[in-house]
Amino acid sequence: MIKPPPSQIKPSQLSIITSLTNSTVKQLTSLRLEKFRHEHELFLVEGVRMVRDAQRAGRVPKILAVHHDQSHQPEAVSLMKGCETVISVTEEILTKITSKENPQLVVAAYEIKRQPLSSINPQAGDLFIALDRVRDPGNLGSVIRSADAAGAAGVVLIGASCDPYAPEAIRASTGSIFHVPVFEGTEADFIAVARKWPGSVVGTAAAGRVEYRNVKYEAPSLIVMGTEQSGMSAAIERACTTVVRIPIHGRAESLNLAAAAALMLYGARESGELTKGIS
Amino acid sequence: MIKPPPSQIKPSQLSIITSLTNSTVKQLTSLRLEKFRHEHELFLVEGVRMVRDAQRAGRVPKILAVHHDQSHQPEAVSLMKGCETVISVTEEILTKITSKENPQLVVAAYEIKRQPLSSINPQAGDLFIALDRVRDPGNLGSVIRSADAAGAAGVVLIGASCDPYAPEAIRASTGSIFHVPVFEGTEADFIAVARKWPGSVVGTAAAGRVEYRNVKYEAPSLIVMGTEQSGMSAAIERACTTVVRIPIHGRAESLNLAAAAALMLYGARESGELTKGIS
Repeated sequence: MIKPPPSQIKPSQLSIITSLTNSTVKQLTSLRLEKFRHEHELFLVEGVRMVRDAQRAGRVPKILAVHHDQSHQPEAVSLMKGCETVISVTEEILTKITSKENPQLVVAAYEIKRQPLSSINPQAGDLFIALDRVRDPGNLGSVIRSADAAGAAGVVLIGASCDPYAPEAIRASTGSIFHVPVFEGTEADFIAVARKWPGSVVGTAAAGRVEYRNVKYEAPSLIVMGTEQSGMSAAIERACTTVVRIPIHGRAESLNLAAAAALMLYGARESGELTKGIS
Repeated sequence: MIKPPPSQIKPSQLSIITSLTNSTVKQLTSLRLEKFRHEHELFLVEGVRMVRDAQRAGRVPKILAVHHDQSHQPEAVSLMKGCETVISVTEEILTKITSKENPQLVVAAYEIKRQPLSSINPQAGDLFIALDRVRDPGNLGSVIRSADAAGAAGVVLIGASCDPYAPEAIRASTGSIFHVPVFEGTEADFIAVARKWPGSVVGTAAAGRVEYRNVKYEAPSLIVMGTEQSGMSAAIERACTTVVRIPIHGRAESLNLAAAAALMLYGARESGELTKGIS
């Protein structure tokens, strides 16, 4: 393990770590659990593609673990720039860190930048999406990715949410976690924000009176999605300016949360009332 | 285990199976693997909700395993109607069958009804969605659910697809597997079908010339989605009458396959050119 001043890592100085009990390896492995993500305020990212995506978004990993076969390759070396701790490791160690049979060749840990919901500051043409008590990290990651694709300015997590920094959520976000800020707050925090929201607060419910494509999304728009099990809480629904439904044409009872979120995000974006898009 | 003539099961005759090596328990457990699903042409469904959904769709399980606490309850008894084999089991056995810590109280096995792609018979207002070499069963199940919600007449799997009857796909379909037929075929089968398709065959690609909301979906419409990794094959793309793109407004490279499929299905449905909807 080497801790040079940023930008001065020489791959030739990297010795291969083979011990599963190495302290950096143990720290990285611990980040699979929410408890340790909170303790260290770090989260894991797997794969060259996402680490490069993070770099393009101006993010430098705190810790980078590279397969020893790759640690002298220009691509891996370019990812080391500015990184505090770089380790060269065996495949066995990458398997341990990621808990995967065929692990990616690069694993990195990034600082979690928590954003309290009270700090949200909607600008003129912004689009946000809020999720009430989302439970499935794969769905959450997919919503973050769709929010990014729809040019949204942020994702809001209300109440007891699954962890947006869980490996499954990060994987499903495919790099969008570095593009879209995630705000977190209680139901009361959300209601306070919704009440003074300058544009439309559009909730979704099976019993919504208007179809989602037939409503005005006055900018800045805030979309609100409930849980798949029980929808939005009554208090959150009351804080919405409109409640819409996505029509069900067949025999399904409802849509998957991430599919419904994609429809809402694009519905709002394509309503033509939001000006901001490309960031 | 009891094998009465259909409709004559008396829950009072059910003795509790406690042995993990019981042959019916072993058969149900084996269905978690694709090999045995092919061998028995059966697939697993977990939970009262989905089994009731299947019943409403006119499907009767071949085998039903019920938690012994529930096997005399009216709800469970109503699900046994017409079922060939009913067993009353311990929680330990349900855990073994489903490989889950807190298993559902009911697990059932249904006959797989394979539909060759050559048997597809599009009617006037129909909407279909085809997936080229889909890999993730969770995504596939979510597409089947969205296809159902959008009132589609079928889902087509092209080439080397993941198994639509894998437990993860079934779970994600939340019962829609019983509402929407799944057709399977090779790339050559698909191209033959696409060439004589009476309406629009609308492929999707990042480089599509037209935005997905600005195209005519002439009924019957067939949407075609490529893989997340490499899109549609060149041969499939040539068989499309139009290739559209879903615009990316932010910095995401693409959308999740299931999210993109939901946008395409609702885009086609909401274009107003498809007449059929509610089934």
